Amino acid sequence: MKMRAVSAQVLLLLLLLELVRARDCTGSSRCTGSSRRYTPDWPSLDSRPLPAWFDEAKFGVFIHWGVFSVPAWGSEWFWWHWEAEKLPAYQNFMKENYPPDFSYADFGPQFTAHFFHPDSWADLFEASGAKYVVLTTKHHEGFTNWPSPVSWNWNSKDVGPHRDLVGELGTAIRKRNIRYGLYHSLLEWFHPLYLRDKKNDFKTQYFVRAKIMPELYDLVNRYKPDLIWSDGEWEGPDTYWNSTDFLSWLYNDSPVKDVVVVNDRWGKNCSCHHGGYYNCQDKFKPETLPDHKWEMCTSIDKMSWGYRRDMMITDVASEYSIISELVQTVSLGGNYLLNIGPTKDGLIVPIFQERLLAVGKWLSINGEAIYASKPWRVQFEKNETSVWYTSKGSTVYAIFLHWPESGILSLESPIATSTTQITMLGIQNDLKWSTNPGEGLLVYLPHLPPAAVPTEFAWTLRLTGVK
Amino acid sequence: MKMRAVSAQVLLLLLLLELVRARDCTGSSRCTGSSRRYTPDWPSLDSRPLPAWFDEAKFGVFIHWGVFSVPAWGSEWFWWHWEAEKLPAYQNFMKENYPPDFSYADFGPQFTAHFFHPDSWADLFEASGAKYVVLTTKHHEGFTNWPSPVSWNWNSKDVGPHRDLVGELGTAIRKRNIRYGLYHSLLEWFHPLYLRDKKNDFKTQYFVRAKIMPELYDLVNRYKPDLIWSDGEWEGPDTYWNSTDFLSWLYNDSPVKDVVVVNDRWGKNCSCHHGGYYNCQDKFKPETLPDHKWEMCTSIDKMSWGYRRDMMITDVASEYSIISELVQTVSLGGNYLLNIGPTKDGLIVPIFQERLLAVGKWLSINGEAIYASKPWRVQFEKNETSVWYTSKGSTVYAIFLHWPESGILSLESPIATSTTQITMLGIQNDLKWSTNPGEGLLVYLPHLPPAAVPTEFAWTLRLTGVK
Amino acid sequence: MKMRAVSAQVLLLLLLLELVRARDCTGSSRCTGSSRRYTPDWPSLDSRPLPAWFDEAKFGVFIHWGVFSVPAWGSEWFWWHWEAEKLPAYQNFMKENYPPDFSYADFGPQFTAHFFHPDSWADLFEASGAKYVVLTTKHHEGFTNWPSPVSWNWNSKDVGPHRDLVGELGTAIRKRNIRYGLYHSLLEWFHPLYLRDKKNDFKTQYFVRAKIMPELYDLVNRYKPDLIWSDGEWEGPDTYWNSTDFLSWLYNDSPVKDVVVVNDRWGKNCSCHHGGYYNCQDKFKPETLPDHKWEMCTSIDKMSWGYRRDMMITDVASEYSIISELVQTVSLGGNYLLNIGPTKDGLIVPIFQERLLAVGKWLSINGEAIYASKPWRVQFEKNETSVWYTSKGSTVYAIFLHWPESGILSLESPIATSTTQITMLGIQNDLKWSTNPGEGLLVYLPHLPPAAVPTEFAWTLRLTGVK
Amino acid sequence: MKMRAVSAQVLLLLLLLELVRARDCTGSSRCTGSSRRYTPDWPSLDSRPLPAWFDEAKFGVFIHWGVFSVPAWGSEWFWWHWEAEKLPAYQNFMKENYPPDFSYADFGPQFTAHFFHPDSWADLFEASGAKYVVLTTKHHEGFTNWPSPVSWNWNSKDVGPHRDLVGELGTAIRKRNIRYGLYHSLLEWFHPLYLRDKKNDFKTQYFVRAKIMPELYDLVNRYKPDLIWSDGEWEGPDTYWNSTDFLSWLYNDSPVKDVVVVNDRWGKNCSCHHGGYYNCQDKFKPETLPDHKWEMCTSIDKMSWGYRRDMMITDVASEYSIISELVQTVSLGGNYLLNIGPTKDGLIVPIFQERLLAVGKWLSINGEAIYASKPWRVQFEKNETSVWYTSKGSTVYAIFLHWPESGILSLESPIATSTTQITMLGIQNDLKWSTNPGEGLLVYLPHLPPAAVPTEFAWTLRLTGVK
Repeated sequence: MKMRAVSAQVLLLLLLLELVRARDCTGSSRCTGSSRRYTPDWPSLDSRPLPAWFDEAKFGVFIHWGVFSVPAWGSEWFWWHWEAEKLPAYQNFMKENYPPDFSYADFGPQFTAHFFHPDSWADLFEASGAKYVVLTTKHHEGFTNWPSPVSWNWNSKDVGPHRDLVGELGTAIRKRNIRYGLYHSLLEWFHPLYLRDKKNDFKTQYFVRAKIMPELYDLVNRYKPDLIWSDGEWEGPDTYWNSTDFLSWLYNDSPVKDVVVVNDRWGKNCSCHHGGYYNCQDKFKPETLPDHKWEMCTSIDKMSWGYRRDMMITDVASEYSIISELVQTVSLGGNYLLNIGPTKDGLIVPIFQERLLAVGKWLSINGEAIYASKPWRVQFEKNETSVWYTSKGSTVYAIFLHWPESGILSLESPIATSTTQITMLGIQNDLKWSTNPGEGLLVYLPHLPPAAVPTEFAWTLRLTGVK
Repeated sequence: MKMRAVSAQVLLLLLLLELVRARDCTGSSRCTGSSRRYTPDWPSLDSRPLPAWFDEAKFGVFIHWGVFSVPAWGSEWFWWHWEAEKLPAYQNFMKENYPPDFSYADFGPQFTAHFFHPDSWADLFEASGAKYVVLTTKHHEGFTNWPSPVSWNWNSKDVGPHRDLVGELGTAIRKRNIRYGLYHSLLEWFHPLYLRDKKNDFKTQYFVRAKIMPELYDLVNRYKPDLIWSDGEWEGPDTYWNSTDFLSWLYNDSPVKDVVVVNDRWGKNCSCHHGGYYNCQDKFKPETLPDHKWEMCTSIDKMSWGYRRDMMITDVASEYSIISELVQTVSLGGNYLLNIGPTKDGLIVPIFQERLLAVGKWLSINGEAIYASKPWRVQFEKNETSVWYTSKGSTVYAIFLHWPESGILSLESPIATSTTQITMLGIQNDLKWSTNPGEGLLVYLPHLPPAAVPTEFAWTLRLTGVK
Repeated sequence: MKMRAVSAQVLLLLLLLELVRARDCTGSSRCTGSSRRYTPDWPSLDSRPLPAWFDEAKFGVFIHWGVFSVPAWGSEWFWWHWEAEKLPAYQNFMKENYPPDFSYADFGPQFTAHFFHPDSWADLFEASGAKYVVLTTKHHEGFTNWPSPVSWNWNSKDVGPHRDLVGELGTAIRKRNIRYGLYHSLLEWFHPLYLRDKKNDFKTQYFVRAKIMPELYDLVNRYKPDLIWSDGEWEGPDTYWNSTDFLSWLYNDSPVKDVVVVNDRWGKNCSCHHGGYYNCQDKFKPETLPDHKWEMCTSIDKMSWGYRRDMMITDVASEYSIISELVQTVSLGGNYLLNIGPTKDGLIVPIFQERLLAVGKWLSINGEAIYASKPWRVQFEKNETSVWYTSKGSTVYAIFLHWPESGILSLESPIATSTTQITMLGIQNDLKWSTNPGEGLLVYLPHLPPAAVPTEFAWTLRLTGVK
Repeated sequence: MKMRAVSAQVLLLLLLLELVRARDCTGSSRCTGSSRRYTPDWPSLDSRPLPAWFDEAKFGVFIHWGVFSVPAWGSEWFWWHWEAEKLPAYQNFMKENYPPDFSYADFGPQFTAHFFHPDSWADLFEASGAKYVVLTTKHHEGFTNWPSPVSWNWNSKDVGPHRDLVGELGTAIRKRNIRYGLYHSLLEWFHPLYLRDKKNDFKTQYFVRAKIMPELYDLVNRYKPDLIWSDGEWEGPDTYWNSTDFLSWLYNDSPVKDVVVVNDRWGKNCSCHHGGYYNCQDKFKPETLPDHKWEMCTSIDKMSWGYRRDMMITDVASEYSIISELVQTVSLGGNYLLNIGPTKDGLIVPIFQERLLAVGKWLSINGEAIYASKPWRVQFEKNETSVWYTSKGSTVYAIFLHWPESGILSLESPIATSTTQITMLGIQNDLKWSTNPGEGLLVYLPHLPPAAVPTEFAWTLRLTGVK
């Protein structure tokens, strides 16, 4: 009996896989790429080189949007805090604002997305300098932002917006040559089949087969994402999630096998160890240069990823902190994925617009030091935390976050040569400099009236002819 | 490849079956009854004797309740008329009453069932004389009135009532010794997996495996119904629906294998030919005695099975027409299943209460001629359609629908003997009678002041000692 | 200062009166009828003869419809029980069904009247045999069912139905030659100006001047009612309500001065003593013939005047009790005003339709003994409460509620003459009778098969040539 | 008759005035101030000196909040654009988002103010440097943000918030020693009595007597405002509005007679000519120094005074434009009243918080040149629009909006003396300066690294010893 069940499971999986990819692959040469093939195990999958676009992109916009945008209070974990943890604040919120017995599903019809104009969003993201955009196709609540056939009446086509949000945004994003990433949560807090598997210590896979596999294949075949941002993996092992099977298909035979990038959240203990680039934990910030491509994700609203109606200005990351975090992340080899939470009616509130445009404005001057840059041999000045280096070929960029009172910036790491030249991005003339009696260089910053300073903070020096 | 898919399908089915029945059957003797076993084919299944309770019950109450009770307009086919057929009346109804883009799923939260008191319902049904009650557990809209794990967020626990309607009513019904039947629609008009199978000419079974089989097994194991009232079978063949597999399990191994009764809607062309008792089409009324147990289902609201807010009194079947239909049905060997549609807040409106109580009042006098009766050798008087016969042992019951102006009722079929005696149910004394010069008997009805007439219409004569 | 205030009050009143009647009366001969004029005091007003149509009408339909039809629970006094009396049942009802802080005014938008078709209502009322219809234009909640200019945003045009309910129903009623009456509550439980006057022991009249007088004049001028059914008078004296002023205008100068009928609720202690006909208290039923025209108002739902969603059939007056109450009322010189509560969407539920049609059916046979009848010298048989008399000219009608088992009805009061003839309404032939050895007559009722009995209950004998 | 009507009107007015002020004035010495009394005519009223606090305050926050905050789309004139002008954009908005027949009043229940914490608002206003706050107590829609007894069921206590918004904010504002002003619209677009008066060419005053006078007196007596910001006056003459009567009571006998300030919108053709200080038209900006105290009101959202959900960052006034407008306004003798529109749930969105805090930050350095300042003999440099003067005693403040590239600021108007000293607010040391060969002074601005510049824009020089 056990034997039979096992082989049944294998065959069931094969069957389901065919269900979802059948229409795309029959006889198509797209599905049998000429490149090397990966086996469904981590050593093989981890050996795949990361497609180059991702490291070059450096800056992306993250979007958390779903039914949690309706209460728009607390955080996108609203449902969990309310009904699993039963936090008093959440229970009171419901008591004070809704009739008894109002359920989370009852929020669905209020997620109207009525003002959602994907081209406006895409214009904003383009103006922010983002090279990729990642949208929650489905958060832990299980509501799918596209018409998933295995999420009937709990998706954005049947309930609320009555639109294919994932598809509409993708079309707008692609028109602007921005890469499109899909966030996808493996777990669904309250899905009855997930709860059954969990109760069975993840020894059954009813949920994975009925929901996760069909949806992941559907997402890839329908929307051909450049990036899959996996999440919600932490309770079950990767074997439960069928992760290596899915990834081997994704890398070998999917329509996006050559360009797709994935992160590292594919099973318990997997994050920071396997997959594509590493996210490690949320808002992860290494102190020294990691030896694996990574990404820092963080949110403009410091308290939440999803929209909160009661967000205060003190909860909002300042332009300065955003830009300095971007700089530090890129110096340390990371990408910076900055999150906004749109409203239930599909609007990005002005404070988020302002922050994104501030990044875009800064990048319009300093982007040369960011996009397609590589970490330099030194990441930052040890004795002065506010200078961060990047490089491109032999050019070195020193981005300083604080303008010295003296007007003289000390760079200890670069070694001057006879051809050394220093300019500031946004300023015409070369800067004067001298070798530091100790080591490195002293750069004489120009005297500029306030309006002539290229950016409000974080100024970039371009150094050529240094070692 | 084709071979593999086929065996995969078989195994998948086995697997799913185990999923749903595992908890109940492991090592339980309940599951291996000593009685004969049925094979999953119609000859075997059709050979099963119908459990006796059903034929004895004669009268049942049918309940159509679901999300369609929210618009409560047109009929329980609201969704289909509106979005599949696009009937102008339905489209206008939506345009005039709801914002654009309001979807059927958006009705869900308004299905509150707030005034649903199962014991009040059960009291009413008991007073109506019903011996069984059949509730829609899921109509063609797919919304389940119990917390089905494969209908997440489209069931009465997650959305709307936030209660297990099937379970709660069952408990109340059983307390009163009434049999409990579950209506279940095989098809779901708009379920994406059903639509996929349909597009594939029912050669795939994604829907049956993901939804129908798990739910049927779940219903049986959870609620142990006395009756399964299958519907929505007409588009796919019984092989698509896995009907014979399910029924062989139901008859051989289910917890209700000894008592359960089913109807005949188990696949295209199946109705009126296979299964348990026959419903044939809705409101089916044979003209002569059928040779197979059957049931007539009909609705007090002549225009709809589900509640309609705008029901007019002229749409409501009269007490007379209900009782005469009951009489005719029983004479012809059928059961009579009379439908009501509760409101979205769980109330049975007074006009339905009144009609059900009228049946109960009539049965309190005349039930002897109905319950556990058998058709007689003659069903009705050919030349006078208003006399209908039933029998119990050697006793014959003649129920006449119109009181003759002359006060003399002519019964042509019974043959008098020396021991013939005639009484009227509800009246003390024997009636006078004589043999008819032609054939049969002449019965001299008593002169009664209006208040002394036992019932308002449909009076029963009990004949003993006739042939 | 006191002097000035008094004269200011007088002038203010004059001013307001002119405001409301100005447009109708300027130079119009309608306003200066040739008939006698009434002074604003009870002796004069009470001396006005009641227009004849009212006594002839006998049977009317009363309609309670307003914002209370939205919760449709408890009774039309919902607001009072909930927020003034704070009855736990009402407070729980709100707690269980609505968010906290939901107010009564918040019900307004849900009063849609969407299915309100005035002609359907009027057809039903006509078929019920009603000769007049009385609609709540404004109940104690203060919501006006017409666009009152002094009830901005708390009337049926601005909120909810967005229609002039009073006007629309009036048009439909008049097309059928039925008289149209307007129910109007003087008090408004929670109107701030009313509460101020009440606090001032009704020594100020802010409310009466700002709300009551303008609205009463507006109602009369706009809708030209045949009847004003005043209510809500019991807290303030008639001098507070300006009742005699209003009535003198109504009788002398209003557009309906010749036909209008009013009741007796015009101030504390006024009911049963002054005004037009008397209602005395709700559901008032005298035991002997009153010497003043009166009306009994009652409701088919025995528990409420407004619609209750959870009405049970046991709460609904039976056809028998309605008809026997009508008979007794008319015998005692009263009119019978039978109430229904439509739903918030403008429907009259089937049970109410059924009851009204039953009255209509009964009147279609027996109306001759009701409409335009007068009380006879005897109202009912003292020793047998189930015979009630009416008369028309020399014809006497004896309506008996119970058919005697013996088939012989004893009428003790009529005195036979040589020309005495007796028939039963609905039956062709004369009935046999004899003089009673004691006194009165013995009437030999016919032997009729059930279907030939003219009505189900309450049969009428027409006696001519009796004294 | 005409005579009588006139005197009735006079008396009616007297009566109403007593109604509203009676409770406060009886025998109270507060009501009979010792100061001079004003007669109800413009020459007298205009002669009243403006209480000093207003000119000293300089900067206030304006708040537009009402039922228009529910659609939160287009502008606070939503109702007018939609239903009076029938602009297609507004009609489509309704068609696309609401059921047909949804009325403006139906928005009321959604105005929840659930997150309205008056102390948070007041903290923000205090941090913005505002010295007074003006709230819309009632906009042209007529909805009152306090429980007005003459606006039953169309006020914030009966509908929506179920709170006294005017009162609650006032309490919080006063705790922080900020002055409290009440915006009040005289007209109400759709009030039936207003429409009647308008149709009568404002020769009747039904609306003014029933609504405006009671409410203005109620506002003053209840909340004791420091400022009444009148609006909505433009259609009717001041005689229609009873403005001079009200103002004479306000100045002579009201509880705020000594401190209250009013603006100039008290009747058609009144604005810019009569009343207290002048607003003239919205966003009014004179080019030279006016000879009467004035105030510029403007809105952070350049497109609307009320909250708009779809506000874009490009619609939001920049910090620079706000601060430079404040500077110019104060130089020209005006006050600056900067508007925000809170959301329907009572939140001030982060972008508004950010702008207000930016003003507060700027004022924390430069407030010395603003608060309690007086216009100087010159307002700005004719040949360089970016230097604006204020003064305090003999001290002159020169606020320059653009930092000259040369680092040398030319001030042509001040005449140096032997004691001339120049400092920059926010900087310790005196600045160097020289007399200009032409005329005036040349000021040598310090070389400052970006972080040391006191503010981001608009720097203040304090000049002492100049003429």
